Amino acid sequence: MSGCFTVGLVGASGYAGQELCALLAGHPSLELTRCWSARGEGLGNLVAEGAPPIEAWDGGQGVDAVLLATPHGVSAPLAAEALEHGAKVLDLSADLRLADRALWEQTYGHAHPAPELLPEAVYGLTEFAREAVAGARLVANPGCYPTSVLLAARPLVEARLLEAGAPVLSDSKSGVSGAGRGGSDTTHYGNVAENLRAYGVGTHRHAPEIQSHLGGPEVVFVPHLLPCFRGILSTLYLTPAAGVDAAAVREALAARYANEPFVTVLPQGQQPELRQVQHTNRCVLGVEAVGPRVVVTSAIDNLLKGAAGQALQNLNLMLGLDETAGLEQRPGLA
Amino acid sequence: MSGCFTVGLVGASGYAGQELCALLAGHPSLELTRCWSARGEGLGNLVAEGAPPIEAWDGGQGVDAVLLATPHGVSAPLAAEALEHGAKVLDLSADLRLADRALWEQTYGHAHPAPELLPEAVYGLTEFAREAVAGARLVANPGCYPTSVLLAARPLVEARLLEAGAPVLSDSKSGVSGAGRGGSDTTHYGNVAENLRAYGVGTHRHAPEIQSHLGGPEVVFVPHLLPCFRGILSTLYLTPAAGVDAAAVREALAARYANEPFVTVLPQGQQPELRQVQHTNRCVLGVEAVGPRVVVTSAIDNLLKGAAGQALQNLNLMLGLDETAGLEQRPGLA
Amino acid sequence: MSGCFTVGLVGASGYAGQELCALLAGHPSLELTRCWSARGEGLGNLVAEGAPPIEAWDGGQGVDAVLLATPHGVSAPLAAEALEHGAKVLDLSADLRLADRALWEQTYGHAHPAPELLPEAVYGLTEFAREAVAGARLVANPGCYPTSVLLAARPLVEARLLEAGAPVLSDSKSGVSGAGRGGSDTTHYGNVAENLRAYGVGTHRHAPEIQSHLGGPEVVFVPHLLPCFRGILSTLYLTPAAGVDAAAVREALAARYANEPFVTVLPQGQQPELRQVQHTNRCVLGVEAVGPRVVVTSAIDNLLKGAAGQALQNLNLMLGLDETAGLEQRPGLA
Amino acid sequence: MSGCFTVGLVGASGYAGQELCALLAGHPSLELTRCWSARGEGLGNLVAEGAPPIEAWDGGQGVDAVLLATPHGVSAPLAAEALEHGAKVLDLSADLRLADRALWEQTYGHAHPAPELLPEAVYGLTEFAREAVAGARLVANPGCYPTSVLLAARPLVEARLLEAGAPVLSDSKSGVSGAGRGGSDTTHYGNVAENLRAYGVGTHRHAPEIQSHLGGPEVVFVPHLLPCFRGILSTLYLTPAAGVDAAAVREALAARYANEPFVTVLPQGQQPELRQVQHTNRCVLGVEAVGPRVVVTSAIDNLLKGAAGQALQNLNLMLGLDETAGLEQRPGLA
Repeated sequence: MSGCFTVGLVGASGYAGQELCALLAGHPSLELTRCWSARGEGLGNLVAEGAPPIEAWDGGQGVDAVLLATPHGVSAPLAAEALEHGAKVLDLSADLRLADRALWEQTYGHAHPAPELLPEAVYGLTEFAREAVAGARLVANPGCYPTSVLLAARPLVEARLLEAGAPVLSDSKSGVSGAGRGGSDTTHYGNVAENLRAYGVGTHRHAPEIQSHLGGPEVVFVPHLLPCFRGILSTLYLTPAAGVDAAAVREALAARYANEPFVTVLPQGQQPELRQVQHTNRCVLGVEAVGPRVVVTSAIDNLLKGAAGQALQNLNLMLGLDETAGLEQRPGLA
Repeated sequence: MSGCFTVGLVGASGYAGQELCALLAGHPSLELTRCWSARGEGLGNLVAEGAPPIEAWDGGQGVDAVLLATPHGVSAPLAAEALEHGAKVLDLSADLRLADRALWEQTYGHAHPAPELLPEAVYGLTEFAREAVAGARLVANPGCYPTSVLLAARPLVEARLLEAGAPVLSDSKSGVSGAGRGGSDTTHYGNVAENLRAYGVGTHRHAPEIQSHLGGPEVVFVPHLLPCFRGILSTLYLTPAAGVDAAAVREALAARYANEPFVTVLPQGQQPELRQVQHTNRCVLGVEAVGPRVVVTSAIDNLLKGAAGQALQNLNLMLGLDETAGLEQRPGLA
Repeated sequence: MSGCFTVGLVGASGYAGQELCALLAGHPSLELTRCWSARGEGLGNLVAEGAPPIEAWDGGQGVDAVLLATPHGVSAPLAAEALEHGAKVLDLSADLRLADRALWEQTYGHAHPAPELLPEAVYGLTEFAREAVAGARLVANPGCYPTSVLLAARPLVEARLLEAGAPVLSDSKSGVSGAGRGGSDTTHYGNVAENLRAYGVGTHRHAPEIQSHLGGPEVVFVPHLLPCFRGILSTLYLTPAAGVDAAAVREALAARYANEPFVTVLPQGQQPELRQVQHTNRCVLGVEAVGPRVVVTSAIDNLLKGAAGQALQNLNLMLGLDETAGLEQRPGLA
Repeated sequence: MSGCFTVGLVGASGYAGQELCALLAGHPSLELTRCWSARGEGLGNLVAEGAPPIEAWDGGQGVDAVLLATPHGVSAPLAAEALEHGAKVLDLSADLRLADRALWEQTYGHAHPAPELLPEAVYGLTEFAREAVAGARLVANPGCYPTSVLLAARPLVEARLLEAGAPVLSDSKSGVSGAGRGGSDTTHYGNVAENLRAYGVGTHRHAPEIQSHLGGPEVVFVPHLLPCFRGILSTLYLTPAAGVDAAAVREALAARYANEPFVTVLPQGQQPELRQVQHTNRCVLGVEAVGPRVVVTSAIDNLLKGAAGQALQNLNLMLGLDETAGLEQRPGLA
């Protein structure tokens, strides 16, 4: 294929990895030519129809770009090696999302495996880092919850539309695919279906990530495990600055995202729902007044805009391609 | 049966009505002897095994108590008639939940059908109105969302544990049985399963009810439709008063409910989930710190503690019975 | 667009119509230029992003082809009009699936609305009617259940691999989208989720359709309503002819479908599942021995290979296009 | 408690064990006084509110009856020890369900762990073994699928209502609780929800059990994994003997079960569904003609009539109690 870049992938067997394989299979200018296992599992296996067999990690040789769909703690050293081999690197793990090493080590509970990479890594919330991503060798893909919250709140913080000192509260709900592909008590059908619970209240690792990339206001973040497979809905409770109402908030968001291919702001009276965004790279936002407060709701597919889709969006930019290549919305109902 | 009271029911075919039939069938001292249709539907039908056939409404004659599982606007005139016939009346609709007639008419959009009843009706949030319920002829059963929110927040308001002026925010999620038994776009499997959305943002009729019965603080309430059948989880975001922390809030709730048969406060680190409360009359509360805020989560079964169960709890009191009669928890997993 | 055909659609608001809109939006050579309402509902509305607004039916003028996603009884007269205007017609309803008028009238309980069309209509089970479809003006798209059963059994009947006189039994299970988009008791989440039941036992209208197009053997067909949204799995219980075993049956199916783009036969030990075929136009078949019997399982997406997908596959053929155009499989997990 | 028997349980932490705990907690004459772990897991833990802590297995001392909710291969030696200590033993595993040791060893793939027990063990399909169970020291509780199939078919075989030589085909569908409480690929929400597949086709271990206890006809049994938690629906395809029609089959079943507290035969035109039997010990049967064949559908709760409920039904008999004690149906919708 002329004008095509080669891509290698570590971690193809997880949910994000599987989505990456599927997206790459339909991408006009990227070709998945290598699949590596970081720890030796699954060598020789095919991870998807048409994908290359899994090989032992060799440092990320022979590809233009390396995608790391590996756990935190595993990714960063692989990133360092791949950069040395000259590849561009997009890391879907949390290893490089916090610029502050001390905060990272406090959050993840052990020494950072490659702190020397932190200064260079660009936090790839695409709509807020387009130019930096385009010029980067190394991009940290945002977490799923942080993507859903930051797309809703960050324009309002930047435009000083929120009352100084008031917290940004996000009640977030995620489908169980966020818990990964492994069988466990958490993912057992009998514990998920017809159920709901909050978890990680006050302790979830995405809270510092949201706090770091939102800017000033105090962040209060509570995640919940939904009885469904994919999608995140975050409901944000905001206190507008004096003179700002829900209409102004809606308008500001609509203006901020007017030219964004993947973010939609709904008119008054409409609410996003998971089915609108499932199997797409979109974020859909709704804005309503509740008394003097403003409630912003934000829906994404956690596996796409919250993981593999945004990763490809960033990789497109890093390689000088059209940002939307391979990310056209899927047809169908669900 | 000696020491037995007779009960009549209007609205037996809805979800709450069906649960009432099931609970009454197992009640040691109550007998369902009459089923009426307020509008003539289903005359002659049996609504449940062992239940009496549906008759046309006759004013609620010949029973010790009348249960109204009828829509708002329909209930209140039936209540007035039944009271005249000497029955005790428990109304599951919203007709008599707001003491303020003007607020009711603004909320429900039409003239109140029996405003003369408002002064007498007792708001039956049992744990906060036990004595008044026990002495009442007429009880308004609380809404499902208000029950879940008020049980979590009202003790804290009463004990002045929340910062003055700070809002009480409740992000509430309900199973689809809250939308009733009718087939519609809202209840279609294809619109519920694998989906989630907020609704009634800033306009839901339970917001004034919560506000009225919470006392002072501003209430911000956003309901969501869950992809499951039964249960409500409310996540409350609270700002404690100076010197008050999550442990103090947890302790205060635990003390307040120490002798309550149907309310449980979990220890630190545990979160309620819907499966704990489904098919029971229980409310389970969890309390955690999230930075300087306190998050209280509250789980109930919307059809039981949020409707039929609390109705029976109140009726037991009105008739001088053991409050827990017929409300023993069901065994089993789900 | 050069080399493009124009398409009009009646019944765009149902599930099959919605899928057709989505598929047409991504089709390289077909353009949806007209949407009609047969009965005046929804005039002026847009049925999908980018689709034309709904107009009153005008006989199907000005398009190369008309797709009828309308109920039985409604479709056939529309087909007659559209043919007169020179359009090719693909009818997704049951109106033209039975060549035998008397059988149709007995099955559907009223006079056939356009019996003069029956001799011309081609039954579009694509893999068994490719040439006839390619030359047809008028194609009747098979029902969802019949597609799943016939793809599994018809090659075996044609190759005389089944014992003469033995019945073909199909235990079929369908997601609730087969019941249509209307809200009803049948489609209420509370009646679908965590439930299962057989329905139409001995009376389902797809039984005569299967019988008619299978050829000789007695067909025993029992459909079930699954607690899921999309997909049909049919489990067929077959008695092989003397000397024929499961391996021979598997081989025969594999050979029959070796060059078919949308039908896959699994190797021994593998079973199709709904998630393999959801959001695709594929049929996946599994074959196993159970004692002396052979069990063939067949999975399709009822809305695609069972409706809109096969419709487009047929339309491609009718218009001389690549049969697979616009039907590439969707990426992702589902 | 006077007139009370003490019961000990091995395997309290699995789904069947949990149901047994719940049922025993509400039983009027049985008290769960011991919980043992066969392999040392969970010692000291409470398995349910009010249940005794888990102890190491001591041979089953000090109780009137021992319930074994343990895996096959583990149960039989425990049964032998408990019998020596004088307890009555009810085994929920498959160890003692096949009287034919060779068939057992072929089916389960290893030597039988206590073949000396096989002659004594009574197969506890209660409705067909009431007297034998009442007099037994040792009862093997039937498997979930066999219970659903045998209750539907065995009366017809016994009454010679089926054509000699014709197979009994059962297409059976089970909720995922049948796969046990462990997290795995099989039980992961993402593999269960919105999915369906056949499994164990031609190899499932319940097929020999059904065959053994049905009597003569060839059994063809195919299980499927449903996207729901609890319940089994079996659809049986039967060939009636000459002169026998669906009405005769229905009548025969109705007569056979007329005095059975837990088996219901529906009138013509009605089909059982899972929600009718979930959380109950009931079996509900439907009968319809499909051409010359007869289709019998059978619904049970796999965890109750298919496991813990029937176990308690049998234990009641073994101890001389009312067979229905502690098994009253639960109220409620789901």
